[in-house]
Amino acid sequence: MAARKQLHLNAFLFACGHHGAAWRHPASQVERLTDIAYYEELAQTAERGCFDAVFFADGHSVRDPAAGGLWFLEPLTALSAMARATERIGLVTTVSSTFYTPFHAARMLASLDHISGGRAGWNVVTSMFDAEARNHGLEEMPPHDERYSRAAEFVDVALALWDSWDADALELDRGGVFADPAKVAPIHHRGKHFLVDGPLNVPRSPQGRPVLFQAGASEQGRDLAARCAEGIYAVAYDLESAQNYYRDVKRRIRGAGRDADAVTVMPGLVTYVGSTTEEAHRKKAELDALLPVEQSIAQLSLFTHQDCSEWELDAPVPDLPPLSEFTGPQGRYDTILRIIEKDRPTVRALLGTLAAGGGHCTMIGTPESIADDIERWFHGGGADGFNLMPPIYPDALTDFVDEVVPVLQKRGLFRTEYETATLREHLSSPPQ
Amino acid sequence: MAARKQLHLNAFLFACGHHGAAWRHPASQVERLTDIAYYEELAQTAERGCFDAVFFADGHSVRDPAAGGLWFLEPLTALSAMARATERIGLVTTVSSTFYTPFHAARMLASLDHISGGRAGWNVVTSMFDAEARNHGLEEMPPHDERYSRAAEFVDVALALWDSWDADALELDRGGVFADPAKVAPIHHRGKHFLVDGPLNVPRSPQGRPVLFQAGASEQGRDLAARCAEGIYAVAYDLESAQNYYRDVKRRIRGAGRDADAVTVMPGLVTYVGSTTEEAHRKKAELDALLPVEQSIAQLSLFTHQDCSEWELDAPVPDLPPLSEFTGPQGRYDTILRIIEKDRPTVRALLGTLAAGGGHCTMIGTPESIADDIERWFHGGGADGFNLMPPIYPDALTDFVDEVVPVLQKRGLFRTEYETATLREHLSSPPQ
Repeated sequence: MAARKQLHLNAFLFACGHHGAAWRHPASQVERLTDIAYYEELAQTAERGCFDAVFFADGHSVRDPAAGGLWFLEPLTALSAMARATERIGLVTTVSSTFYTPFHAARMLASLDHISGGRAGWNVVTSMFDAEARNHGLEEMPPHDERYSRAAEFVDVALALWDSWDADALELDRGGVFADPAKVAPIHHRGKHFLVDGPLNVPRSPQGRPVLFQAGASEQGRDLAARCAEGIYAVAYDLESAQNYYRDVKRRIRGAGRDADAVTVMPGLVTYVGSTTEEAHRKKAELDALLPVEQSIAQLSLFTHQDCSEWELDAPVPDLPPLSEFTGPQGRYDTILRIIEKDRPTVRALLGTLAAGGGHCTMIGTPESIADDIERWFHGGGADGFNLMPPIYPDALTDFVDEVVPVLQKRGLFRTEYETATLREHLSSPPQ
Repeated sequence: MAARKQLHLNAFLFACGHHGAAWRHPASQVERLTDIAYYEELAQTAERGCFDAVFFADGHSVRDPAAGGLWFLEPLTALSAMARATERIGLVTTVSSTFYTPFHAARMLASLDHISGGRAGWNVVTSMFDAEARNHGLEEMPPHDERYSRAAEFVDVALALWDSWDADALELDRGGVFADPAKVAPIHHRGKHFLVDGPLNVPRSPQGRPVLFQAGASEQGRDLAARCAEGIYAVAYDLESAQNYYRDVKRRIRGAGRDADAVTVMPGLVTYVGSTTEEAHRKKAELDALLPVEQSIAQLSLFTHQDCSEWELDAPVPDLPPLSEFTGPQGRYDTILRIIEKDRPTVRALLGTLAAGGGHCTMIGTPESIADDIERWFHGGGADGFNLMPPIYPDALTDFVDEVVPVLQKRGLFRTEYETATLREHLSSPPQ
């Protein structure tokens, strides 16, 4: 009997949670953001829920110290420590192809793969902010095309470096040779962006190649994902957008000559779990009420090209002009229209939804109703799994692990224990 | 009563040990070189011995796979894991100022400092091999002066980034601000080598500034050390060379307007400990016997400008011309002359001494005789401590910790337990 297709789950770790006001909540652990044990405990919770992986985004600048949501520990160092506090869960780190050299990236990821016994993953990003560029020697970010051209070559070099050690290169023959020089080969890469001789100075790691993730939404991002990613982080507020993205990216994967089923597409997912729907909404409302209103309204005015300052906070959002009449950035406005159409939120609830993961799918309800929604996306061609973005840590993650995961397991959608050892195996990706 | 001046001890971790043939020894753990638990256990052994720190050197290329002595795990990731397996011992990593950006270096070190609760140290190196340059986009290494000019600016930027967060910047006031923007300040650095706006995206770490180490032997290296290092790794085969170096570098530290007593000078130290002098020599001879003879003799011929291929391996080294008549590189030849004069070794023993740490001090004997030698260097103005380079791991470290450390403790030269929490405090350096 062929194994039934299984759902995949990542926990996206971020500060006190993905809601912009999470740190203000009495249950947030904001005092522990530089404490590695905080992140270890979150990873252990996700591991208790048999998640495929935990995932760190990353950035290279400080934006608004007063408002929170800053970076704290650097992900490669943090995940190396967390590797020793966990046993099976994957450890995915974001590494920027614009600010690292491919040798550093390949080496540190291979090292993390050794330290974790084959659980390392790499979310390739090109970074975006000029403030980040100005921390790494550039006056501004290179243009989008340039960044993606560099990213594509960066990934090729990293893959070549990981392949520069044959799996059986180490002989460790005390009376003979340490490693077979014929199995540790330079790569002599000379490209548009990089000069890298190799070989890597880390022997081949348990996964051979740490698992590649990509989250690009642009044409070039999707093509890079199609060509090399084994996991894809997506953004979709509703099932229809998810299906459109899913179809498009799977088509591109097939177009790149790869097995589309072997690539896991995971939209971001914000969940509020309650024993009743009302309790779930109350959890969201509690966080939404902590948002600094003036600032959020000003941002909404910017997003909608409306003066929202006179809007009644606890009344439904007034009608907005259709997308076709909107002259600003389309993506965000489209998401706002979809949120309004799907949820009919109050102004404050809309601000809260935007403040928790922005345009990502938001499911609010009982464990059963959320499992229903997940199943609908999973079987409806919208997702192979989800990148869970708990609005507040640790509570929203604990809720999901203790309440939703058992329902998914009962339905046969999700593993009840780890049956595999490496992240690539968890994702059912072919060995590399 | 003023505290009596205390000795400082680092354990220099390197593969199977510092003897070139260590991996060939039956007691080596060569099969575990990619196993993080191996390094954790070594750090725990050093911590049992109350060492100030463990230390990783680093390199960015693979030289001779057949001969061993390769790099395995990347130090920043490895030490982050090791931080969680230890409680008090310092964790010093080498980071190259030629291949990193100062933002990456400052950030990862600050992260390690958080993860370890204030135990991070940074050995600043400029790297040296063209093979390393060709892994990071350069056809060859920049010239020595250029590298040191970059290193000096690199350190200044890193220090400024660490200082970009005031210690009390984080308010974490749930009803107010997250961090006080006035206490998280950009650095707006525009120098010859770097453009870095800052601030760092990691809040001020427990030590404020991770502890700086330097090992430069050149003029520029000594000056950089004098200006900013809190610990200095030195190379001296005998006490006289150690005293010369010690005097020179302490003079430079005072010249830079700093307190010379607050900077710990630690020559490398290779030890063979036995319950008798004979047993200690037998331990060395066992390792020396594992050296591939032809290769070592060829190297010795190169170092001495002699044809050594006809020398009797187990006879004393024949007389060599004085330094004044030698036309090759002086430093290495001078060391060879000193080894011959001090130890009257056989040819094989000379090869072994050169194969274990090269020109570093080598002490062979009982715990008491080695403690005597250490005391002589320590009280004789040659060292404030030592960077221990065990010829073979774990045995030579275990011997030192279990046999020599108790003698040093009994003599009141070394701590019997950790009385301080951070690496800077262990080193009795002033807070930064």
